[in-house]
Amino acid sequence: MSEYQYPINDILFSLLSVARIERLTPHLDEAVDNDLLEAILGEAGKLAEQVIAPINASGDQEGSRVEQGEVIEAKGFKAAFKAYADGGWISLSGDPEYGGQGLPSYIATAVNEGVQAANLSFSLCPLLSLGAIEAISLHASDELKNRYLPKMLAGEWAGTMNLTEPAAGSDLAAIACKAIPDGDAFRIKGQKIFITWGDHQMSDNIIHLVLARLPEAPEGVKGISLFIVPKFILDAQGEPAERNDVHVVSVEHKMGIHASPTCVMSFGDKDGAVGYLVGKENDGIKAMFTMMNNARQGVGLQGLAISERAYQQALDYAKERKQGMNAERTERVAIIEHPDVLRMLMMMKSQIDAMRSLVYVAAVENDLSHFATGEVQQQAITRTALYTPIVKGWITEQAQEVTSLAIQIHGGMGFIEETGVAQHARDARILPIYEGTNGIQAIDLIGRKLHSDKGAGMLSLLADIEAELAQWQTPDMAPYAEKVAEVLEQAKVATQLCLDAMRKDSVLGTGLAYPYMMLMGYLVGAWLQMRALHAVQSDNKLDATQKASWRHSVLFYCDHVLPRAFGYAREIKFGQTTVDNLNKNAFNR
Amino acid sequence: MSEYQYPINDILFSLLSVARIERLTPHLDEAVDNDLLEAILGEAGKLAEQVIAPINASGDQEGSRVEQGEVIEAKGFKAAFKAYADGGWISLSGDPEYGGQGLPSYIATAVNEGVQAANLSFSLCPLLSLGAIEAISLHASDELKNRYLPKMLAGEWAGTMNLTEPAAGSDLAAIACKAIPDGDAFRIKGQKIFITWGDHQMSDNIIHLVLARLPEAPEGVKGISLFIVPKFILDAQGEPAERNDVHVVSVEHKMGIHASPTCVMSFGDKDGAVGYLVGKENDGIKAMFTMMNNARQGVGLQGLAISERAYQQALDYAKERKQGMNAERTERVAIIEHPDVLRMLMMMKSQIDAMRSLVYVAAVENDLSHFATGEVQQQAITRTALYTPIVKGWITEQAQEVTSLAIQIHGGMGFIEETGVAQHARDARILPIYEGTNGIQAIDLIGRKLHSDKGAGMLSLLADIEAELAQWQTPDMAPYAEKVAEVLEQAKVATQLCLDAMRKDSVLGTGLAYPYMMLMGYLVGAWLQMRALHAVQSDNKLDATQKASWRHSVLFYCDHVLPRAFGYAREIKFGQTTVDNLNKNAFNR
Repeated sequence: MSEYQYPINDILFSLLSVARIERLTPHLDEAVDNDLLEAILGEAGKLAEQVIAPINASGDQEGSRVEQGEVIEAKGFKAAFKAYADGGWISLSGDPEYGGQGLPSYIATAVNEGVQAANLSFSLCPLLSLGAIEAISLHASDELKNRYLPKMLAGEWAGTMNLTEPAAGSDLAAIACKAIPDGDAFRIKGQKIFITWGDHQMSDNIIHLVLARLPEAPEGVKGISLFIVPKFILDAQGEPAERNDVHVVSVEHKMGIHASPTCVMSFGDKDGAVGYLVGKENDGIKAMFTMMNNARQGVGLQGLAISERAYQQALDYAKERKQGMNAERTERVAIIEHPDVLRMLMMMKSQIDAMRSLVYVAAVENDLSHFATGEVQQQAITRTALYTPIVKGWITEQAQEVTSLAIQIHGGMGFIEETGVAQHARDARILPIYEGTNGIQAIDLIGRKLHSDKGAGMLSLLADIEAELAQWQTPDMAPYAEKVAEVLEQAKVATQLCLDAMRKDSVLGTGLAYPYMMLMGYLVGAWLQMRALHAVQSDNKLDATQKASWRHSVLFYCDHVLPRAFGYAREIKFGQTTVDNLNKNAFNR
Repeated sequence: MSEYQYPINDILFSLLSVARIERLTPHLDEAVDNDLLEAILGEAGKLAEQVIAPINASGDQEGSRVEQGEVIEAKGFKAAFKAYADGGWISLSGDPEYGGQGLPSYIATAVNEGVQAANLSFSLCPLLSLGAIEAISLHASDELKNRYLPKMLAGEWAGTMNLTEPAAGSDLAAIACKAIPDGDAFRIKGQKIFITWGDHQMSDNIIHLVLARLPEAPEGVKGISLFIVPKFILDAQGEPAERNDVHVVSVEHKMGIHASPTCVMSFGDKDGAVGYLVGKENDGIKAMFTMMNNARQGVGLQGLAISERAYQQALDYAKERKQGMNAERTERVAIIEHPDVLRMLMMMKSQIDAMRSLVYVAAVENDLSHFATGEVQQQAITRTALYTPIVKGWITEQAQEVTSLAIQIHGGMGFIEETGVAQHARDARILPIYEGTNGIQAIDLIGRKLHSDKGAGMLSLLADIEAELAQWQTPDMAPYAEKVAEVLEQAKVATQLCLDAMRKDSVLGTGLAYPYMMLMGYLVGAWLQMRALHAVQSDNKLDATQKASWRHSVLFYCDHVLPRAFGYAREIKFGQTTVDNLNKNAFNR
């Protein structure tokens, strides 16, 4: 089993030179200097490597279980959660008024890359807590904030998100869980499924955020409200006291993320679970979407993180495992000497570099949308909205390929669970599904993001890419800038075709959504890889070997990864009729 | 859990209209008429659906275990194996002299599609037996054939293949297992790993075929011999008697195919396992390769089979699961009504149709290479050699995508093991690895198949495709024939580039092997899809709905799957330098 190394150099390079965090400086009360950033990430890396990574494989084997109505998590997780909470890692981006550190979110993103790579199952608990914290911060009353946020930011209490019901998965409009007014509070009744870390013993309380319907609420998404439902109801001093009427029914037996308990939760089996309204009545979906956009970027980050983890393990193995002879046939060589293995490793690495650039570019854009004002903020909001489905959808698709390649490089050993590399692929398989399937992401991109502003935001992004490409006219960058520009032209055509299709029929048009999302992912990845190559050349922190490694990654990306964009562009160009004509009868043989 | 339906109509159509089994008729002593074929496949389908499929999920959950030095297989497998053996299914293609039925192998292929789809783990036992039967039939002395073949063909005894050792995976030259002469027999000593169905209780004896080295044998692959090592040594009457010195050490804990025991086998812990030489001394690799070529086509078939299984389950779910509203927003609809779900389902189905056509075209070519004579035989041998790595490599890559899409269509339920669809993806993950990794397949294609005859065989295949495309000039086929012709032109260029690269440096050139294999797979798939469309139009057995379904599949393939070929062609055209320049230092950051 190889050990995880937090890739701090690559992360700092992405933040400083590709995502250009200095763009945020004018908008922050207090700028984060680079030494502080490096120190924070150095500490985060140690936590990930030394505390959280070592319980990843054991957590996969042990999983979690229900005993006497309580979820028992895998061994070592409680101690790791305490270390994480005590280190102040949950409160990094939190509101200082409630004990948060008020740092820009890109820092939390960089920290979480390490935590997620080290142990995806573990990372989901603080991640869900952060989602709950955010929902409360943005939408709850001051009273609720005062009661819940300080303990949650301190990591003493965890949080969950309760959306899905058996009949309401992608379709939140079908939510049936009920909320009945009861004095100042409400009584919540209903069943929720797929509740990540819905119960555990790692914190003194668990704060469930629950979507439910008030009596006589309008049908559909306009009649859904958001509630806080604590596992233990707080007493007058704000301490967890009486057990609330919310219980775990069972945990699912899943393909991956075994150590993350995915719970069926029952609210109000007896008198109804006591809940408190967050925000206005019937306004729950809006609050959920705020959280969800960040959570979606968070899932993209998971795709990057687990890809990096799988890549490191494959690289270690390829350097150790001897099979076959050298070209002169004089001695046995490590498999990394074989061209097809080098190809697979660089296929992984070059995509990871592109994924990381996109993750941090999107994170900084997201910070700008919060910290900046006026036109800068407006543009950042639009740009973040465009990036989000690409970060979630495209990156998690790439993660399937990268984690699968890691197995492939291990040959037969990759299929043996003890090797540990299959776990990454099994864990990664959830990523294209949760927080909105990738189909939903693609439809979000072509519909809510592209179609609804008639392409203005996307065309502005494409123009920015074009302008930047035009700057890279040195003899060694120009030929590659030209290759990216060729794809950019295809993307312009595809964008127009998608706009036309959506204008004509906004349901049928979504048949082009998936190839469009993938095309944009590959293009944005190439653009940012080229930006990285440009930055590498003048970066004094990198030595010649590191610079050469970046160069290999970027040129390989342009020649071996980016060409897929032509396939997607062609699918959009010629394939609309064939996909429009499909209906359920097309499968009758 | 959906039920498997043997797709007999699609299989018969592929055999009759795409693979054109009538090409074999002049070369067979006794032709198989279509009614008989349909009757055989009908019975095979029932066995697969009713006997073998029902123990697939339970076998996945139970797995196998070692008790007192014996492997205990999952419940129900022994009875299923008896039903399979008693039905005469093992002996379909066997030599009539030893109790076989002497039928062309395409029939066994069509039967096995059902068995593999029903239960991949189960299917591996008879598959490995067939490999052993073939090795004995082709290479062993008459005495050994008489002693072993009748019982093996009757399914009373099973067979295994013992190649891999801890230090000898893809690199068979490193085999270290020893064979010491002992009278007429040999004593075998050494450890083998990854031995599929290396032990079990389903048959009265297990006949291991083992690669080992004689004392003072030449180094490398030229010093390897093949031996029969029975679990129970036969007495004078040819009945299993004394226990041989071969034992299972452990079974692996794997990502998938849990019910197929993957064994560590120890030969000769005490006095050496008694073994009998098959063929000549030091000629073992040749015998292994004979088997391996068929086994490789067999693994491609597994990719098709499990894709079909996953597709059926996804289609059933998509028709049942309700989420979201119809376009008029008047009622909830099954998810198959949504364009992106239709896209995913047709992405699966159109690839499966292409995969199936290729599997049966290759099977018939393989039969021609055995039954025909003269020039027809020679051409069939060359063509089979070309098809084999594409069948194994390209189809098993497609199987990863198709089984993953089946999970995706299930949304969150796809990740829950009880749904049963994740098993198909976990099971399928072994396919790109065993019987030669797909990297090895690609290198086989570009090296042993393309480079070694200076492209003659491949150029002849491309010319045949071109000639056939030129025939489809009806108004509705011509535009699509043109799209395939465009890819054909790209393939010609790519072929020349690969030949040049291999001529220049036959090690570095293999860096292009994988994209070349994939390009050829997509092209061949498109050509055969077009052939299917042509055949559909004049097929009286198909009704209008079935014809329309085929039409959707072919046109969708050309517009949504085939475009990927442009990406691979571009990778070959522009990417040689970037892949040539890689070495292990490229990953040093």
